[in-house]
Amino acid sequence: MIMNRFSFKNDYAEGCHANILKALVETNREQQIGYGGDQYSAMAIDMIKERFNSPEADVYFVSGGTQANLLTISSILRPYQSVISAESGHIFTNEAGAIEATGHKVHAARSEDGKLSPEACREVLDTVTNQPHVVKPKMLYISNTTELGTHYTREELEALSGFCKENNLYLFVDGARLGHALTVEGTDVTPEDIARLADVFYLGGTKNGALIGEAIVIVNPELKEDFGFHVKQKGALLAKGRLIGIQFMELMKDNLYFDLARSANQKAMKIKAAFEAYYCGFLTDSYSNQLFPIIPNSWIEKLSEEFDFYVWKKIDEEKSAIRLITSWATPEAEVDSFIASLKRLA
Amino acid sequence: MIMNRFSFKNDYAEGCHANILKALVETNREQQIGYGGDQYSAMAIDMIKERFNSPEADVYFVSGGTQANLLTISSILRPYQSVISAESGHIFTNEAGAIEATGHKVHAARSEDGKLSPEACREVLDTVTNQPHVVKPKMLYISNTTELGTHYTREELEALSGFCKENNLYLFVDGARLGHALTVEGTDVTPEDIARLADVFYLGGTKNGALIGEAIVIVNPELKEDFGFHVKQKGALLAKGRLIGIQFMELMKDNLYFDLARSANQKAMKIKAAFEAYYCGFLTDSYSNQLFPIIPNSWIEKLSEEFDFYVWKKIDEEKSAIRLITSWATPEAEVDSFIASLKRLA
Amino acid sequence: MIMNRFSFKNDYAEGCHANILKALVETNREQQIGYGGDQYSAMAIDMIKERFNSPEADVYFVSGGTQANLLTISSILRPYQSVISAESGHIFTNEAGAIEATGHKVHAARSEDGKLSPEACREVLDTVTNQPHVVKPKMLYISNTTELGTHYTREELEALSGFCKENNLYLFVDGARLGHALTVEGTDVTPEDIARLADVFYLGGTKNGALIGEAIVIVNPELKEDFGFHVKQKGALLAKGRLIGIQFMELMKDNLYFDLARSANQKAMKIKAAFEAYYCGFLTDSYSNQLFPIIPNSWIEKLSEEFDFYVWKKIDEEKSAIRLITSWATPEAEVDSFIASLKRLA
Amino acid sequence: MIMNRFSFKNDYAEGCHANILKALVETNREQQIGYGGDQYSAMAIDMIKERFNSPEADVYFVSGGTQANLLTISSILRPYQSVISAESGHIFTNEAGAIEATGHKVHAARSEDGKLSPEACREVLDTVTNQPHVVKPKMLYISNTTELGTHYTREELEALSGFCKENNLYLFVDGARLGHALTVEGTDVTPEDIARLADVFYLGGTKNGALIGEAIVIVNPELKEDFGFHVKQKGALLAKGRLIGIQFMELMKDNLYFDLARSANQKAMKIKAAFEAYYCGFLTDSYSNQLFPIIPNSWIEKLSEEFDFYVWKKIDEEKSAIRLITSWATPEAEVDSFIASLKRLA
Repeated sequence: MIMNRFSFKNDYAEGCHANILKALVETNREQQIGYGGDQYSAMAIDMIKERFNSPEADVYFVSGGTQANLLTISSILRPYQSVISAESGHIFTNEAGAIEATGHKVHAARSEDGKLSPEACREVLDTVTNQPHVVKPKMLYISNTTELGTHYTREELEALSGFCKENNLYLFVDGARLGHALTVEGTDVTPEDIARLADVFYLGGTKNGALIGEAIVIVNPELKEDFGFHVKQKGALLAKGRLIGIQFMELMKDNLYFDLARSANQKAMKIKAAFEAYYCGFLTDSYSNQLFPIIPNSWIEKLSEEFDFYVWKKIDEEKSAIRLITSWATPEAEVDSFIASLKRLA
Repeated sequence: MIMNRFSFKNDYAEGCHANILKALVETNREQQIGYGGDQYSAMAIDMIKERFNSPEADVYFVSGGTQANLLTISSILRPYQSVISAESGHIFTNEAGAIEATGHKVHAARSEDGKLSPEACREVLDTVTNQPHVVKPKMLYISNTTELGTHYTREELEALSGFCKENNLYLFVDGARLGHALTVEGTDVTPEDIARLADVFYLGGTKNGALIGEAIVIVNPELKEDFGFHVKQKGALLAKGRLIGIQFMELMKDNLYFDLARSANQKAMKIKAAFEAYYCGFLTDSYSNQLFPIIPNSWIEKLSEEFDFYVWKKIDEEKSAIRLITSWATPEAEVDSFIASLKRLA
Repeated sequence: MIMNRFSFKNDYAEGCHANILKALVETNREQQIGYGGDQYSAMAIDMIKERFNSPEADVYFVSGGTQANLLTISSILRPYQSVISAESGHIFTNEAGAIEATGHKVHAARSEDGKLSPEACREVLDTVTNQPHVVKPKMLYISNTTELGTHYTREELEALSGFCKENNLYLFVDGARLGHALTVEGTDVTPEDIARLADVFYLGGTKNGALIGEAIVIVNPELKEDFGFHVKQKGALLAKGRLIGIQFMELMKDNLYFDLARSANQKAMKIKAAFEAYYCGFLTDSYSNQLFPIIPNSWIEKLSEEFDFYVWKKIDEEKSAIRLITSWATPEAEVDSFIASLKRLA
Repeated sequence: MIMNRFSFKNDYAEGCHANILKALVETNREQQIGYGGDQYSAMAIDMIKERFNSPEADVYFVSGGTQANLLTISSILRPYQSVISAESGHIFTNEAGAIEATGHKVHAARSEDGKLSPEACREVLDTVTNQPHVVKPKMLYISNTTELGTHYTREELEALSGFCKENNLYLFVDGARLGHALTVEGTDVTPEDIARLADVFYLGGTKNGALIGEAIVIVNPELKEDFGFHVKQKGALLAKGRLIGIQFMELMKDNLYFDLARSANQKAMKIKAAFEAYYCGFLTDSYSNQLFPIIPNSWIEKLSEEFDFYVWKKIDEEKSAIRLITSWATPEAEVDSFIASLKRLA
């Protein structure tokens, strides 16, 4: 199972940033209070609240994205309420029915590029008019960046937030790759914007330099009550909460979290430019660390000899879209090597 | 939140064993397959199966004990089935209703010492005769060691296993402290016994030297099918499965797991002997790393000035039981210091 | 399956009161709006609200007691909240885990006579202090009359209601036999008291003259929101809501509901007096339509030749408690016949 | 709420067939065993098993269609399994998330006419390949007749059944209007075919002459175990099971059930012919008791003065589809009156 080709399959193939390992080693023998009562978790929480300009927010650390999603959604919705997701949304497609398992319907709104739009949400609302014979949508779920590498502009987020307010819905941002979304070159969205426009969001560690851990940030005061019970009840409360606390403390220090994400994005953009130079198209217009170039199947065969990646979607008899993901840990040398291989093909 | 008194409150106050940190550092930049497909998880699984003499078992790593319990129980029980626990069992008392949240009743069987007996289980079965107006018990849940520090003898485990077979029940062993149970001085229970007598059990890492992680071992072939779906659906599947794989690989090497547990037990027994020397009684007859000495309230006050521990239960106006827990990480010097303080009081 | 001995086993062996059949026949070919929008449901709701002096209450009709219980409880509790019941409570013992299946723990409070006391509830609250590691009790569930034939006095209900207010709990009254409770001879509890002291209760039709149907009355405004969605989602919304509406309309007319219950109680008291005349004891001190006389096993054998009833509990080698239930439909002649048989034995 | 225009809105506006009322009156004072142990339920079950040529089937009576659906589906599926429905299927659109509330995802397969096809199911299966990161479809749900009035041919049912066997899926037929499907003029599907091709189905009473009640028929022996527990746990077990037993006994006698459905279909076909005479199109090609004619909005306005019905769907600026439903109880005179009104418009 050691990989003999460099993998661009995902952004969680390596361990963690060196600073985190160092901090784990240095603090290892200290006695700390369990279940998130440790000083590092407290420090990390303060740093996150400051960075997102949300002094009143509640922050909880959990171990993974599906856990963050099912926990957040099921804590907020009443049994007869549902959540709207893009049809490509992680909760609709890739969580083994985790949301439904907590009792809630997920509506799939149409989406070409992984993003949810007020128009597509309106279409869902238009189907649920025969109440109480139908569920009651109460939340929009968006991932940012999306599963297709795209990101939201401030205008788009404002529009979704406005739609939520008009329709008495909550806005939840799955931020497994929120760092990448906030460091796309030229984005006009700031961390403060996320906290201002979302009712609740999470900040992913696993795909951006941590060994494990996501930070759920509850901004809307209505959603805070007794959240800790939900965390415990779903089996998400770690005895050694320090493990995630230390990681987010390190990631928040000196903006490391955002630097790592930006670095991942930049490597992807370098690869993107190479594909563009050979007039390749892309499945979606991504500026983040997930790329979906459309290339001849013969190229895929050749590139696969040296690199590992997913063939994402058949486009026609000759071409397919592949998925390439870079991360904080991707060596520049591998990026260059990939581009060189591409050059030999084109 | 830095503790200025040494804490005997639990066995998860420190980080992890040095070997684990070393392995995390050494393997950090390797690319590994995600979601448990990494080579370290594979090695750890093989080592566990060998150590428990269960070559056919399925092994899954999850992040904590409540998660292991809710996942295992809910994967096995059909909606109308229930589980029997000692009234002091972790799933009955301390998991925020996690089992009920998956839809299942937990019956509390009477127990003085934290252990479940066939007689107490029989009493529960005698109350559920009016089927289908009542739930159908289908599983016994035991923790070993128990929440009160006690452990099961082989004869007791054989009796429970026999009871299960007679009554068409599964036996599930919560092994958050299974290492401690199997290294109690003089115990006649071996790892093989656990795997032979239980249908499913888990092996706790969090309380025995790991940063995070429990290993669920499914022995009964009937219970294996599609377990991976449950893991994913409950949010328990880690993207970087290597994190737990590496830890269990290190813990299984050279019997480290059992050595750490034995060391914790021995430190507790040293403290126990000191209490016995002063004719103190105990709430339960523990030979493992959890002690419940009954001492005068005046002693509690004095000892609390130097050490941190739980006052567990009021016994009478003058005396209370306290809970002291040692671990792999407890320095011998702190044990000696505690005993010295005790000596000054007695 | 035609019974050749008269049965005192329960109060749902016969069909329904003649007035109900008559109304069903008379209204049969009328077209009415479905799903509870019919005029009879509306009339019945108004009559119930008037009788219980609760003009602001919301009333919903459902088909049975377990459905009423699971619907009401699961609509009110958040996932981590639990309900306290007497250990003999229907939801704890006889609903196949229906409440747990909706995700909620049921705490069993000790009780000798089927009634819940503030003291026993306090004992439960004292066990759930380690939050959020434990569930959060949020509701008291009482049945009135209880499963053991006993009923609450106004003072007892006031005490429970006060306890709830002090501890931020809701009070839910399972009124499968509420008519019987309110017509016990000499009771000081009125329908108005129930509506004043409970947050929500239900009024049972099935055991008091209807073919089917229970009326859930939500008094506390906090608990009303969107209840109709829960009803639909649990499969409890009948297309022909008229079926239950017509029945409760008839039962509420001229106090029929209470007259039927009183009549059932009086027949039971006549039998009770007969047992008392022969110095028999009783398992509980019942003044309602459920009796639990303790009699020699030889009597049981003889009485069983002519009548059907449950042997409830072994008292000693010689004696057992039996359960006898009378209803609105029990002919006086059968009561007299039973008493005559008893006389021959004694 | 008395309707002053005759309603073609649904097939549950009236009470029940006279035979049922007669039987309820005649049996009213008999004592019968509760919870479905009565002789009438037993007789009805035998008659259903004979009529569907399924001597080994298990039959359970429940109060409504949503209850039948949620009970059947949740009893069969394991937590990580899902069900495929046409996008117009009742469980996907009109049950307030009842299936999801039991923990299961419902996949919406594309469908123009309310029917599910193997091709559309295949498209769903093609989206769930990344196991265990996705749910595992395990059942097809079809309604027959569908929500759009269409019915399946034998060939179509054989194809779906074959698809299920190839893909290890169960086939569940929602038969709220199964009587109508089996009595469409010229259909080649027999009751025996339904029992032979489905693993489980239900036979609706509410929409075909009963006051209340659906009969779930479990044909596949794998699905029978302990179903009674599910019925009780979901609150679907009626104390007076006789109420539904008597109704199905009467409906099964002398083929009344099918005669009533045929009569409803014939009335609809008479109306259909009238629309066809005026060259109206239809939203779907229905031969059963639900019609969806497409007519000018001006006609809708006029017809609404005399009759009540749903305007189903806007077709263009000038025309809309309406929904007309006939039933066993629709007087021929009202059918004629409707046709006469139509004639005046056209």
